[in-house]
Amino acid sequence: MSKLQIKSPVPSDIEIAQSVDPVPVKQLADRLGILEDELDLYGKHKAKVHLSVLDRLKDQANGKYVVVTGITPTPLGEGKSTTTVGLAQSLGAHLNKKCFACLRQPSQGPTFGIKGGAAGGGYSQVVPMEEFNLHLTGDIHAITAANNLMAAAIDARIFHEATQSDSALFKRLCPADVKTGKREFAPPMLRRLQRLGIDKTDPDQLTPEEAARFSRLDLDLSTLTWNRVVDTNDRFLRGVTVGTGPEEKGKTRETGFDLTVASEIMAILALTNDVADMRERLQRMVVGSSSKGEPICADDYGAAGALAVLMKDAIMPTLMQTLEETPVFVHAGPFANIAHGNSSILADKIALKLVGEDGFVVTEAGFGSDIGAEKFMDIKCRYSGLTPNCAVLVATVRALKMHGGGPNVVPGNPLPREYVEEHLDLVEKGCCNLAKHIQNMKEFGVSVVVAVNKFGTDSDSEIDLVVKKALEAGADGAYPCTHFAHGGAGIADLAKRVVEVCEKPNDFKFLYPLDISLKEKIDIIVKKMYGGDGATYSEQAEKKLATYEKQGFGNLPICMSKTHLSLSQDPKLKGAPTGFTIHIRDVRASVGAGFIYPLVGTMSTMPGLPTRPVFYEIDLDPATGKILGLS
Amino acid sequence: MSKLQIKSPVPSDIEIAQSVDPVPVKQLADRLGILEDELDLYGKHKAKVHLSVLDRLKDQANGKYVVVTGITPTPLGEGKSTTTVGLAQSLGAHLNKKCFACLRQPSQGPTFGIKGGAAGGGYSQVVPMEEFNLHLTGDIHAITAANNLMAAAIDARIFHEATQSDSALFKRLCPADVKTGKREFAPPMLRRLQRLGIDKTDPDQLTPEEAARFSRLDLDLSTLTWNRVVDTNDRFLRGVTVGTGPEEKGKTRETGFDLTVASEIMAILALTNDVADMRERLQRMVVGSSSKGEPICADDYGAAGALAVLMKDAIMPTLMQTLEETPVFVHAGPFANIAHGNSSILADKIALKLVGEDGFVVTEAGFGSDIGAEKFMDIKCRYSGLTPNCAVLVATVRALKMHGGGPNVVPGNPLPREYVEEHLDLVEKGCCNLAKHIQNMKEFGVSVVVAVNKFGTDSDSEIDLVVKKALEAGADGAYPCTHFAHGGAGIADLAKRVVEVCEKPNDFKFLYPLDISLKEKIDIIVKKMYGGDGATYSEQAEKKLATYEKQGFGNLPICMSKTHLSLSQDPKLKGAPTGFTIHIRDVRASVGAGFIYPLVGTMSTMPGLPTRPVFYEIDLDPATGKILGLS
Repeated sequence: MSKLQIKSPVPSDIEIAQSVDPVPVKQLADRLGILEDELDLYGKHKAKVHLSVLDRLKDQANGKYVVVTGITPTPLGEGKSTTTVGLAQSLGAHLNKKCFACLRQPSQGPTFGIKGGAAGGGYSQVVPMEEFNLHLTGDIHAITAANNLMAAAIDARIFHEATQSDSALFKRLCPADVKTGKREFAPPMLRRLQRLGIDKTDPDQLTPEEAARFSRLDLDLSTLTWNRVVDTNDRFLRGVTVGTGPEEKGKTRETGFDLTVASEIMAILALTNDVADMRERLQRMVVGSSSKGEPICADDYGAAGALAVLMKDAIMPTLMQTLEETPVFVHAGPFANIAHGNSSILADKIALKLVGEDGFVVTEAGFGSDIGAEKFMDIKCRYSGLTPNCAVLVATVRALKMHGGGPNVVPGNPLPREYVEEHLDLVEKGCCNLAKHIQNMKEFGVSVVVAVNKFGTDSDSEIDLVVKKALEAGADGAYPCTHFAHGGAGIADLAKRVVEVCEKPNDFKFLYPLDISLKEKIDIIVKKMYGGDGATYSEQAEKKLATYEKQGFGNLPICMSKTHLSLSQDPKLKGAPTGFTIHIRDVRASVGAGFIYPLVGTMSTMPGLPTRPVFYEIDLDPATGKILGLS
Repeated sequence: MSKLQIKSPVPSDIEIAQSVDPVPVKQLADRLGILEDELDLYGKHKAKVHLSVLDRLKDQANGKYVVVTGITPTPLGEGKSTTTVGLAQSLGAHLNKKCFACLRQPSQGPTFGIKGGAAGGGYSQVVPMEEFNLHLTGDIHAITAANNLMAAAIDARIFHEATQSDSALFKRLCPADVKTGKREFAPPMLRRLQRLGIDKTDPDQLTPEEAARFSRLDLDLSTLTWNRVVDTNDRFLRGVTVGTGPEEKGKTRETGFDLTVASEIMAILALTNDVADMRERLQRMVVGSSSKGEPICADDYGAAGALAVLMKDAIMPTLMQTLEETPVFVHAGPFANIAHGNSSILADKIALKLVGEDGFVVTEAGFGSDIGAEKFMDIKCRYSGLTPNCAVLVATVRALKMHGGGPNVVPGNPLPREYVEEHLDLVEKGCCNLAKHIQNMKEFGVSVVVAVNKFGTDSDSEIDLVVKKALEAGADGAYPCTHFAHGGAGIADLAKRVVEVCEKPNDFKFLYPLDISLKEKIDIIVKKMYGGDGATYSEQAEKKLATYEKQGFGNLPICMSKTHLSLSQDPKLKGAPTGFTIHIRDVRASVGAGFIYPLVGTMSTMPGLPTRPVFYEIDLDPATGKILGLS
């Protein structure tokens, strides 16, 4: 039962968040039947849940699995996280179902840059929102440390190979022990020898030729894709020259930094099923090719074990709660374009066991159905073995007006008046975008219920029109939702319909099989999801696709890196365009995470700070310890 | 009473650490009388202790305060951390005193690079050593985030100032609100206006000239000292060119990365007394000067509040324990050359209250008495108001032989036989170094007890000789110690003497007053601590000293950045040299932390990875979750 005290007009997010007194997370865990040994507290309101829950509950039936996605949004976002939280609050506190929301951990970059936090908003939030938006339980920091240890290992090795003879290099890789005088291969070195087909375990038995093959990774620098990362919006790190210090002897190299959430290790965290699997994925991450065209992996640098050690706590999801005491898992937050943009498989799996057969897990997929939900189905569900019982599609009158020909929506500028006045014509015309996203979900055989996220400026006629159009397009339900203003109570109609829909049998299917060519997979996505005619490829892209298929990675799923602001590759093309092609500029591989990502256009993986970043308003009150100004 | 099961020969550090079952930290906190509201658990064996303990116990008398320092070490280190832990184990588990050890948090860089962990060794360790050496409770990661947000803010501002007109810049700094149309200054902007002497609070009232002065920080790039940081040994980041991406329009800049522990924010964490003080120190950090020579501080970028928010949990010390269940605070770990190399004031203060009048707090100062302990006295004690009751000086036969003319000790090479055979002549000759360090502590009016850290290869005659020489040099006691092999039991004689010495009245005095010139302070340190004749200065150093005195920072204490491998500036000059001068190459200021640091020679703030880093041995056992190979 909810104890939420609703005020009108809706106060600021941080005011609402700080007005409630969250239940101690230990108590929340008790309610969920989590045992003391399965819980690591991180202060009073966050805790990590051990993966051993999955063993204990392995015979427990899963709960119902609901994925939240959206139509093509305006640059302001249409409230997908808020809807995920609101729906969970409704199922939990109003319909009295056992329920979990599973959310991504946000990057700190936007928190201090332009966007502010990502814990939902209004009366549908995760609390304490300050904890959610800041360090949480350190998972992103662990990824930063692991990613950058890998980077340091790569550059140090390049340097050592460039400055040492074959024999010196081998001697330093396998030095004589200070006490025993004996030389020994470390375990990753034995694995590398196996990959090289050298069946020896004693360093002294290698021929000079074998020692040289073993010692020289011989990385072709033009193929090196491993960037360093920071969790800060630092545009001056987009492009950097490293090694300009005098001790690096002029061996400079052009590279760049991404936000930490763009690291392949983040994608691995989100897609892994257990510790052994994570350890294996970290080991097989490919950072580039040798000059002979062989893939060079993390294990060749001997770093995979250390990376796994750095990630040993991060693999456990973090338990938090909504404003209405619904349990929430916050875990992983991979980029939604160069990666798959979904929270972790492990959080979903543990939540599905904890809520049990009659319970519900609401998980969010990044961006619209063409990107986040497509990757949810074809990548995340493929690796987890789970399938959703229902998709919830978030739509707003604002975004639909934009798709119907309304003027540009620009962050930081006042909204043009088309968006604050009734314009049924624009809404009606824009509903083609909504219809396409409904159809997209149907492609996977999944039922879809539309959440019309109602703003104060939307007229009843506009809302009614969207509901009507959604049903006409084949939605299994469509409801006005006011969870921002009213919490779980504001989205109860939709929640009830979700419960009904989840009882129906499921006819889930992937969009494409894995055993066709990479190009065929891309072609299917472009045609079925985007409504386009197909794809064209740069010379570079053709070459990379051929390389990856030759290296044995042709059976991986596809993770398209495309703008979320249009179904096409052109952010200005609104509505539901047809008759276009997608141009693949380049192709990359996240072999450890397990996907190939074609780059459509240029994706920024490092935002900048505006002239007046939001951090100007953020402060810590020394008297109360309260955080001020976080939005 | 200790339950430690001692084996001989001594197993590896990680074997010993994993052989004990640490008491739950909640239980440890209960024993210390820490209230539930004052404790934030981070898993089962780490917890943060709230600063509110200090308020609750403000009328409680402090315990005795013992600082551990050392003679000039070999590059292998002489066991100062191990002695700190062993002494605390002895006082706590063997003499039944209430006792705390206060240690620095180690950087992850060396953990994965050359050195391995830093939790003590043998039967004198902090456990779980894996937690100690890895993420701990995230403090270093918080510093990385804060330091790099500051860096991003600086470079973004340089870019915005370089690419925008005065009026555009002002308009973007104070934009009209999207809804109300009103322009407002953020709180840090109002503080900047005050510093500029502009007594206005409404953006629309500023003259164009005032708006330009307000908007343009006009940073002189040649004075910018703020580096980015990572907690990884990444030599290719020592020197970097940032801004090479196409969107940064050719506005590249040469800069570099340091290890996170070299960040001024780390030094602030170690020297702060409460939240308000930390907030103030972050605000007044100086990053460079304007082209007119005025200092530019963090507050000019509006970032201090956000930095404080990022540091809000890091300010609380982390409670852990030794192998013998002695409580340990792990908190802050500033570099011992470019910063002051001591753990936090707050950890010491809370520990002194928790142990109470009859209890003991053992805290470690980095490097030898000439560096770490001098800074402990003149910087840390000056800011804390605390004074030590006793200093413990760690000496080894190995290091004394080196000072007596023994061959070079090189990490990674076998020890020359002079160090594993009896050589009384070398020991006797080397004791001049021991005598100088004893004398150094006496300069502060502090009693000093010598811990002769005994290795298996030391002969009894050698040990006896060191004890004799120490007493001749004025030590208040000197004892062979075998805490590495025997835990607290092996250092009980020394512990008993420490208890006695702490009963004596104290005659503490600083080495120098604050109200003399910076050069006079440097001169006193060189003469009294190093045994040198004085200092010479580069032109650059002279200029910087003049600037800092002109900017009003002449009253700060001095934090010498000098090699720890000699009392002089020449690492090869062993023993107790005289007749030398110190050359100050450059001078920098950590105004927020509160010291001026003269640079003697070049200090590396970013180690590299060797060809075979220790991470080759590190792995995570997926079956047990145990960490393997951490040393």
